[in-house]
Amino acid sequence: MVRNLEYPKKPENTVKRYNSRATYDLGAIHSIINTTSVLHVSFAPSADQPFPAILPMIGAMGSFEYPSSGLDEPLDCYLHGYVSSRLMRLARESPDGLPICVAATKVDGFVLSLTPNSHSYNYRSAVLQGYARLVETAEEKVYAMQLITDKVVAGRWENTRVPPDNVEMTSTTILRVKIESGSGKVRQGGPHDEPKDQTRDEITDKVWTGVVPVYEALDAPVPSATNKVAQIPAYLDRYVSEVNRGNREIALNAVNEP
Amino acid sequence: MVRNLEYPKKPENTVKRYNSRATYDLGAIHSIINTTSVLHVSFAPSADQPFPAILPMIGAMGSFEYPSSGLDEPLDCYLHGYVSSRLMRLARESPDGLPICVAATKVDGFVLSLTPNSHSYNYRSAVLQGYARLVETAEEKVYAMQLITDKVVAGRWENTRVPPDNVEMTSTTILRVKIESGSGKVRQGGPHDEPKDQTRDEITDKVWTGVVPVYEALDAPVPSATNKVAQIPAYLDRYVSEVNRGNREIALNAVNEP
Repeated sequence: MVRNLEYPKKPENTVKRYNSRATYDLGAIHSIINTTSVLHVSFAPSADQPFPAILPMIGAMGSFEYPSSGLDEPLDCYLHGYVSSRLMRLARESPDGLPICVAATKVDGFVLSLTPNSHSYNYRSAVLQGYARLVETAEEKVYAMQLITDKVVAGRWENTRVPPDNVEMTSTTILRVKIESGSGKVRQGGPHDEPKDQTRDEITDKVWTGVVPVYEALDAPVPSATNKVAQIPAYLDRYVSEVNRGNREIALNAVNEP
Repeated sequence: MVRNLEYPKKPENTVKRYNSRATYDLGAIHSIINTTSVLHVSFAPSADQPFPAILPMIGAMGSFEYPSSGLDEPLDCYLHGYVSSRLMRLARESPDGLPICVAATKVDGFVLSLTPNSHSYNYRSAVLQGYARLVETAEEKVYAMQLITDKVVAGRWENTRVPPDNVEMTSTTILRVKIESGSGKVRQGGPHDEPKDQTRDEITDKVWTGVVPVYEALDAPVPSATNKVAQIPAYLDRYVSEVNRGNREIALNAVNEP
């Protein structure tokens, strides 16, 4: 029997509320991160003000050391984009890496029950805790740039002008997050109503209950004013179809209890 | 001339990177918060561990004191759901409120340019900093529960079994965040390529550039196993159509420069 790898349960990542929905499975958690368009990255407040910072960033799981690793194996999280100078400075100044938290959440449906208190979402969420460092070598930077570009549209990297030139390499900043712990949460199924409402006809005759499936949809690609390629390339056309079909399928499947 | 209200620029909310995309307009920021299904809420780490916490939560902007306030007026942020005991305890123990950060990000498109470095997203993002306190009175709790329920599906509250009974009232926890500062960022338009690539035929003849519009889509509502209302109610049917039309329109409009 194959045992899936799991993140160790520590105080900072152990799910307490609805813990039957929790997962510590590397494959499940990494796959939520990799299919979420925007990750939310949090780091501690600076000394002069009380609020922690949150930045929306683009990122993907990968391993520069073992590039052929599967999603269910130990991986780093590479982050790119909207890197405020503050985050970069903090990462540069932290010899052991800057402690950060990375969150990804996908909504799969609105769950509508008899009473507002039992309303819920179908969703998949993942949170990673780890130490962020700047990627230093050109090789690892190119590895991460390709990883992140192909996460946005599969196959995009090799269909653009690559490799990046010197100016592009020095102007690009990538963070590598070494993961300390992680957890995920998944909610699927229809509404759960209580007998006190379920047994009253004047309520059940009036209140519609069920699920509105929710998913991220891609529309037909729109060429830019300067685009000179007449047809939408096959890899892009296929990607748009596959993402739409896959995302919708996940939302529809989530309507039913697992 | 009417002047829009803006959040004051302070060190913690002033946008530095691509600051031409920044907005401090209350109406713009509150509207991003109110149309984002899941908000990401961050608070400082506890003393025994280094990582800030992030929780996905459902929330909405509102004013219990001035319920008729518009989205462009000063509002509080009400948060509900997935409230870990830790966050609730911290809020309860903070006499001046717990400093938290609330982030909302909507992706409107993947912007594909000639070179990976110029790839981008069309997006709308908002970040609020404020002090979170537990809502104490029953009146304000009901106000916030209705606000949040109707954010998920407009008109849902009055079409469910309300008001909440005593058990539901005491088991529900709502945070009110008094906003100290906020900022938003909006990116629209097609790719921006550099002349060094734009002038080379061997690149422009090969690389398709443009935008893949992205939006959150709602599928047809699926009745639960115990649902007894034969037809999907008009308010729900209308909501699904309107959200789909509105979300898609925003993504398509974002393809063009403002």
